[in-house]
Amino acid sequence: MKKLGLVYLLLIGIFVVYLLNYRLQANNVDPWETAGLRGNLEDTYVMLTFQIGIDYWKSVLKGFEDGAEDLNVSVEYHGSTQHNANEQMTVLEQVIAKKPAGIAISAVNSKLLTETINKAVESGIPVVIFDSGAPDSKAYSFLGTDNYKAGAEAARKMADLTDAKGEVAIITTPDQHNHQERTAGFTDTIREHYPAMKLVAIKDGRGDQLASRGAAEQILADYPRLAGIFATESKGGIGVAEAVSAAKGNSAALPKIISFDTDKETLDLVKKGGISATMAQGTWNMGYWSLLELFQLHRDLAADPAVYKNNKLLPVPGMVDTGIDVVTPVNVDNYYAK
Amino acid sequence: MKKLGLVYLLLIGIFVVYLLNYRLQANNVDPWETAGLRGNLEDTYVMLTFQIGIDYWKSVLKGFEDGAEDLNVSVEYHGSTQHNANEQMTVLEQVIAKKPAGIAISAVNSKLLTETINKAVESGIPVVIFDSGAPDSKAYSFLGTDNYKAGAEAARKMADLTDAKGEVAIITTPDQHNHQERTAGFTDTIREHYPAMKLVAIKDGRGDQLASRGAAEQILADYPRLAGIFATESKGGIGVAEAVSAAKGNSAALPKIISFDTDKETLDLVKKGGISATMAQGTWNMGYWSLLELFQLHRDLAADPAVYKNNKLLPVPGMVDTGIDVVTPVNVDNYYAK
Repeated sequence: MKKLGLVYLLLIGIFVVYLLNYRLQANNVDPWETAGLRGNLEDTYVMLTFQIGIDYWKSVLKGFEDGAEDLNVSVEYHGSTQHNANEQMTVLEQVIAKKPAGIAISAVNSKLLTETINKAVESGIPVVIFDSGAPDSKAYSFLGTDNYKAGAEAARKMADLTDAKGEVAIITTPDQHNHQERTAGFTDTIREHYPAMKLVAIKDGRGDQLASRGAAEQILADYPRLAGIFATESKGGIGVAEAVSAAKGNSAALPKIISFDTDKETLDLVKKGGISATMAQGTWNMGYWSLLELFQLHRDLAADPAVYKNNKLLPVPGMVDTGIDVVTPVNVDNYYAK
Repeated sequence: MKKLGLVYLLLIGIFVVYLLNYRLQANNVDPWETAGLRGNLEDTYVMLTFQIGIDYWKSVLKGFEDGAEDLNVSVEYHGSTQHNANEQMTVLEQVIAKKPAGIAISAVNSKLLTETINKAVESGIPVVIFDSGAPDSKAYSFLGTDNYKAGAEAARKMADLTDAKGEVAIITTPDQHNHQERTAGFTDTIREHYPAMKLVAIKDGRGDQLASRGAAEQILADYPRLAGIFATESKGGIGVAEAVSAAKGNSAALPKIISFDTDKETLDLVKKGGISATMAQGTWNMGYWSLLELFQLHRDLAADPAVYKNNKLLPVPGMVDTGIDVVTPVNVDNYYAK
């Protein structure tokens, strides 16, 4: 009898262990069926930029990684080393060949990347674009600063700094869509709201510190009474600050500088007064919400690869304005990377 | 000896069961620590509208519920029965008193709700606004149609339908921010791009079928050669269609009607030709992404209630454009609720 009891007990014990273990496993089996939004670690989402080393992307990548950690998926970061469309195209081709679960790309050129982006979408890979758009591409969503609004905000700040009068100039990167928009927002706002201000020059700084310094020096020579310069990207802002600093003594009142973004060198210049203000973008949001949108698209496409072919409204927003803030000596300390 | 063996076996069995059960529980203990984005079923997120019964909110609520299901949280749907700011304010007060995990609200009036919305934010409840905004409020985000863009798109469709010439009119709800924007987008686009078209009248349809029918009848009497009417909301569109249908025989060419949204009656009218086109909004996106943003804000605020006081950029986008599509007889079948 005792032996039989022992056997029963063993059987019951094994059954209970089996049952609990089954429940435990069931919790992890199908990522779409579990309670909570949760993917597979084998699913790799790719963030792809140009100028892969620069500070600016760090906070975007942090957002992208935070999203991946929240959703239990993997990320890779790729990009071209240079500000070069052909190189970025090659990197994108290589990424497409690996069939990732999704791609979030910032396009170095608003037109030249379109075809390769469309190739990714047509091969069934969800693509969203962040920061710098390719408006004619088939990417499902754009997440970034409303650059027109940001340019308009910079113009209002420039008016604050210059008592809304005098000559102003812009140093920009004319072949990038986001810089075109910042320039347009700044230009339109000055023209429409500040009759005593005049935009006298728009020059190409090529996203490069030295080229922007050269362009600024030319503008300072042509317009010695310049009241302000708006640099639509941070390397340019640093170059402009160098040019203006070097011009000290040559002119009575130095022009005010408004730059863009919050890399350490720019923030240091804001702190020291070499740059009057800089525009902070919602870079973490770009990364985080790109990942969440790609996850959503991947889930739909995994269930039905033809889901978006039938004129159905997309399950992600067309445009996400990730926000803008003006950084001055007053609040600059909040913007250093922690 | 056998007895001792039995006791050991029992102890080992109990320990194994305890261990497995602990692992199972640990998986569910801290919602922020688990793999995957997952909340508590006890956390209730509230969606709050006006005119709580109407079809339009169904797809928003579906998105809100889908988000809650994905994230393992609960939702409630509240709202005023009428198109009435005081009533909605009372409902919002009642919801605030229950301290929900988050509130997504569509504001019946762009100004009158601001104070109560701010009260919710200041009491630590995350608030996002969808569909109809309160731009001066402290809500963390707005998710909705870019109504200016939607109005501009409606103007381009109206130009298509009328060979870009003739008199056009608008029936709208002037005290709602979203309708102001649709009206502005339509008006600006006609003025800037279609010199042979002329906007002759803008009338208040009060978001009401009968009032809109009356307004349209007045316009048809004043402008017998009218080429088109843009109704900025669906009840108005139906009222306008009735007025135009009743005017048959009295005038040679009946004006084309462009309406807004995709309730069944509007889609039926598009199918039968009583309405030429209607603008479909990304309503599911409004609900789904509102829930996801609220979840994100709730998580941050639960960890540190003062997190957004220190001039930190928000972890959610300022503005989400949930998308727009033009519905005509060609694609109308895709828009019926399934």
